[in-house]
Amino acid sequence: MITDLEGFASRDHGLAMDSEQQPTFRPSRDGFRWDGVAHQPYKQDGGAPFKDVSRQVLFHEDGLACELRYFEVDGGGYSTLERHQHAHAVMVIRGHGECLVGGEIRSVKPLDLVSIASWTWHQFRASEHEPLGFLCMVNIARDRPQLPTEQEMAQLKALPGVGRFLEKHERKARRSALSV
Amino acid sequence: MITDLEGFASRDHGLAMDSEQQPTFRPSRDGFRWDGVAHQPYKQDGGAPFKDVSRQVLFHEDGLACELRYFEVDGGGYSTLERHQHAHAVMVIRGHGECLVGGEIRSVKPLDLVSIASWTWHQFRASEHEPLGFLCMVNIARDRPQLPTEQEMAQLKALPGVGRFLEKHERKARRSALSV
Repeated sequence: MITDLEGFASRDHGLAMDSEQQPTFRPSRDGFRWDGVAHQPYKQDGGAPFKDVSRQVLFHEDGLACELRYFEVDGGGYSTLERHQHAHAVMVIRGHGECLVGGEIRSVKPLDLVSIASWTWHQFRASEHEPLGFLCMVNIARDRPQLPTEQEMAQLKALPGVGRFLEKHERKARRSALSV
Repeated sequence: MITDLEGFASRDHGLAMDSEQQPTFRPSRDGFRWDGVAHQPYKQDGGAPFKDVSRQVLFHEDGLACELRYFEVDGGGYSTLERHQHAHAVMVIRGHGECLVGGEIRSVKPLDLVSIASWTWHQFRASEHEPLGFLCMVNIARDRPQLPTEQEMAQLKALPGVGRFLEKHERKARRSALSV
């Protein structure tokens, strides 16, 4: 079940990944972009379980067993609620938001650390008017994420605070669908 | 030759490393410190090939093949000039400075990325009056760093700009020795 796929948004659009040695120096540009790093927005569709997420792979190199990626969730957006065997090590570096890990929801701010253990449900949600950006270190060899079944979703929603957190997304999605 | 030791400052003072699961949430505190993360200053002595460096291991966890560490070099300080088989993936997150990688010297600023390939000489140097802080991702299983021999140091100093970069440290060390 080990693949070399994916993380928070559960979609890989087949963009080529350079596994050669990166240039030694890659300066940052304004707006959390980098020279020589592809910006990969996740394509939205009606059934997408995420909203307004992009990914930039900062380090994926020969001789390193992990990748370092930068994910950004636009204001009001959220990553996929998912879990998997592999672990995530996350450091927030832009903006504010909330994250759900297991049954717990916490506010996050720049430089906060979040450890997502094996098989733990997790989701990141940006504050309403500001992007939430975070680094995520992950093994290069890893399994694909699982989405919650209806029963698992019901169990999660029964936890204190989690129902409100998840239903906020659903209400927003409905409003958005009505306004089209 | 694989050990689980060390990076930029070539000294490990045997501080216990927790390989158990970290707490899920570890908020940042002021001044680039974190709840639940030990601050590990490198002890200086007369022959130390580094100056004013500290390390904080942010992520070292079951199931992740890499560690993420935060190194900070005080204003005017520098890390050890060294090389090793293992690769480093670096992102600057505080202050400004210069870094030498191979024969090249570059100024660095927050969010800049630096890839240090296998067996490449490298050294980080903070600007005069401001700390330089950077994240460094590295395999947990890795070899010990090598210091340059006299001959290798002479070869490095012969490269354009490198002599000035390295001799600046030596002049400073002499001034500091004289002032004691």
